[in-house]
Amino acid sequence: MHSEEFRRHGHELVDWMADYLSGVGSLPITPDVGPGDIRRRLPVSPPNEGEPFAVLFDDFRELIVPGMTHWNHPGWFAYFPGNNSAPSILAEMLTAAMGAQCMSWATSPAATELEQVVMEWLRQMIGLPEEFVGVIQDTASTATLVALLSARERATDGASGRQGMEGGPGLTVYASAEAHSSIDKGAKLAGYGLDRLRRIPGDEAFALDPAALERAIQEDVASGLTPACVVASIGTTSSTAVDPVPVVAEICRRYGVWLHVDAAYAGSAAIVPELRGYFAGMDLADSVVLNPHKWLLTNFDCTAYYVRDRDALLSTFSLTPEYLRTVHDADVVNYRDWGIQLGRRFRGLKLWFVIRSYGVEGLRAVIRRHVGLAAELAGWVDQAPDFERMAPAPFGLVCFRYRPAGKSELELDGMNQRLLAEVNATRRVFLTHTRLGGRYVIRMAIGQRATEREHVVQAWELVRVAAGKLR
Amino acid sequence: MHSEEFRRHGHELVDWMADYLSGVGSLPITPDVGPGDIRRRLPVSPPNEGEPFAVLFDDFRELIVPGMTHWNHPGWFAYFPGNNSAPSILAEMLTAAMGAQCMSWATSPAATELEQVVMEWLRQMIGLPEEFVGVIQDTASTATLVALLSARERATDGASGRQGMEGGPGLTVYASAEAHSSIDKGAKLAGYGLDRLRRIPGDEAFALDPAALERAIQEDVASGLTPACVVASIGTTSSTAVDPVPVVAEICRRYGVWLHVDAAYAGSAAIVPELRGYFAGMDLADSVVLNPHKWLLTNFDCTAYYVRDRDALLSTFSLTPEYLRTVHDADVVNYRDWGIQLGRRFRGLKLWFVIRSYGVEGLRAVIRRHVGLAAELAGWVDQAPDFERMAPAPFGLVCFRYRPAGKSELELDGMNQRLLAEVNATRRVFLTHTRLGGRYVIRMAIGQRATEREHVVQAWELVRVAAGKLR
Repeated sequence: MHSEEFRRHGHELVDWMADYLSGVGSLPITPDVGPGDIRRRLPVSPPNEGEPFAVLFDDFRELIVPGMTHWNHPGWFAYFPGNNSAPSILAEMLTAAMGAQCMSWATSPAATELEQVVMEWLRQMIGLPEEFVGVIQDTASTATLVALLSARERATDGASGRQGMEGGPGLTVYASAEAHSSIDKGAKLAGYGLDRLRRIPGDEAFALDPAALERAIQEDVASGLTPACVVASIGTTSSTAVDPVPVVAEICRRYGVWLHVDAAYAGSAAIVPELRGYFAGMDLADSVVLNPHKWLLTNFDCTAYYVRDRDALLSTFSLTPEYLRTVHDADVVNYRDWGIQLGRRFRGLKLWFVIRSYGVEGLRAVIRRHVGLAAELAGWVDQAPDFERMAPAPFGLVCFRYRPAGKSELELDGMNQRLLAEVNATRRVFLTHTRLGGRYVIRMAIGQRATEREHVVQAWELVRVAAGKLR
Repeated sequence: MHSEEFRRHGHELVDWMADYLSGVGSLPITPDVGPGDIRRRLPVSPPNEGEPFAVLFDDFRELIVPGMTHWNHPGWFAYFPGNNSAPSILAEMLTAAMGAQCMSWATSPAATELEQVVMEWLRQMIGLPEEFVGVIQDTASTATLVALLSARERATDGASGRQGMEGGPGLTVYASAEAHSSIDKGAKLAGYGLDRLRRIPGDEAFALDPAALERAIQEDVASGLTPACVVASIGTTSSTAVDPVPVVAEICRRYGVWLHVDAAYAGSAAIVPELRGYFAGMDLADSVVLNPHKWLLTNFDCTAYYVRDRDALLSTFSLTPEYLRTVHDADVVNYRDWGIQLGRRFRGLKLWFVIRSYGVEGLRAVIRRHVGLAAELAGWVDQAPDFERMAPAPFGLVCFRYRPAGKSELELDGMNQRLLAEVNATRRVFLTHTRLGGRYVIRMAIGQRATEREHVVQAWELVRVAAGKLR
């Protein structure tokens, strides 16, 4: 395809994209397809000869779009938000056109230095101390694995990575019972072993109990094990519970354990001064993760990983073979040494465009709107006689269930499962579930860029109507 | 930014992108900047209020573009190619606009099923047997780590992941002396330990010596260690050496060792029938990695990872907490269980657009052109009296050095280092180096989409002129 054809099709696509952005709210938020439906409509083998772009674009519109779940639909209340935004999309266009691979400073100096700048901007925005340095990772799962690997290397003074783990000490990891599954995955992959992850019980608000944490650490030490890492959550996935990080940090300090703070979703809210209190103790961490691709309107993937001890990161991930050496290595940041992947996309540009386009105040306004709507929804739940709120709602997530009188817990679980299915079957909103204290709970996460009060009102109305049908 | 503003700016950007694609060849391929030059021109703190997009776009053009290394410049002969193409960029635009997060089938059915389809198309294109299933990973580093982790779990029957590695057997990994540094990194991160990676000597063509491999395995077994994984390279990074995979596979079979084939760069060439011979034995692997983002014109990141035993992959990476369960889990592929990351971009679309837009024959023609140009360049090197070719050139890479008579090896190393710096200082082409057999070697990798014979001629002329100045 010549550049003039690209120009023509690019303009067509921009019009489609603009229409999509303004019109996605009128599409069904989830597709009406079953497993295999889309695959069956696609050829089993690739074409030998090239096809005109018009055919591809038609297929995209007719086969792919109707088969997508629309994460940027204003009726998005599922999981956590996965936002994009106009400036972010525009940046992704430029990034794609240049197609740079940003593994080293020399392979893209502007990309490396812009990443340094935006990570520094974001550090200031969330109030982390100056000693933290940041790098963009792809996902919080990766960032948490990076933290667990760094903690492993520190706890064994580098012996794990050099000599292997099999002759070394038994290493343990700690997190609350409600902490994210990426910690299990990370503990498994990093060689700690799933059995060495201690899930510490939570309090009534699902936050980690620090006394139980300290007991667990003491027991492990007494058994000859080496506590290596604690993952504290600020905003768990199930209910946005906030662990008591200052107390946890003091325990970590006392036992010489790496403290990783998982604020993947909620961390973006640290840019709002009146919400900063939830992030107390984050400044005491060894590493922190938050996802601008969740709540800061930046296209997935864009995970911000901050680490206090840059050497602990570099000594875990840095390896430079001859074919990657450059004359500048001593004077620059080579982000390939800051994580698992060698190859890297130019991800700083979109975050730069977003922060500059919205301004810090503009981004605060978005988060304030969502948090305000969540507070309003929490109030409606609290006032509805047959509904029960299942957890505090400090950020944008409200956890609740339908609870008519005279039903057993088992019946309530089943009713709420049916209620959720009924609501989602409207395809006008999308909510998901979790379990809290063993109970089936509906999660309604308010955080999509375009979600306004009317969409929350509509969703709550759909919930109440569906509940009414269950009687 | 409203959708109409997005539309206006999107059109502006498409024009810039089309001009960039057609004009990048006239830009300096590498920027004339030193460490910190770009960073110093950017504000140290983020703006409080939003800025107009016109200002951002101006800054992009004036500060960022002149600071970039242009990977899609036709004078690109550095590292390996990192290609994009018009259909791939168009797909990235649509992907960015939808902003879907494709962790599960339910979070984006069309993305999951399209990924299945294009991975199946590519499997056919490269001639892997039907039992292989594919998944798109971000990078070959990640894919190789995934292979090492799967091999670790298989070698310990899952005990490593469950109980941790510290009480288990000592596990070993094998690769040629020339294999990629991601294997060191993976052996370190996966807990094998760097010391447990056996670098097997190569022959005169830098390919792994299978007799030495078998001896190393036998010695390790005799020492009570457990050989877990062999990484065979088809196309090493330094010189595109091809390991004798059929023999290696037979050794792996005999000792029950996981065979991972790293064809990150060269794997794309397996779509060309007359080059298929280099990939003999790939069908006997347990896992294979190749990067469509290198030579198949698909924007980074797009790594194809194929595995024979899907269960070995899933049992290593699958973990499903309550908040991620869906009613379809039993009937669908949830790609979050196929790798390290939970969150995933919609990466199948760009590969689909590329394969359909070029057709298999069109992609073959691109690779044939590059391989033909490399053969031609290799011939020029061979005929030039003061130059020496340093390795076979089966694909698009030619390794050579300047070798005037009467110079010591040390002098030659220094001369070639200066020669390379001189050539790159023209900023018209970009070549990189490696060391082979201890000697400083210039690598010229022909594989950029827009590279034609004239660009190779020009580069070779620049090399000879620079060599002339060294006399």
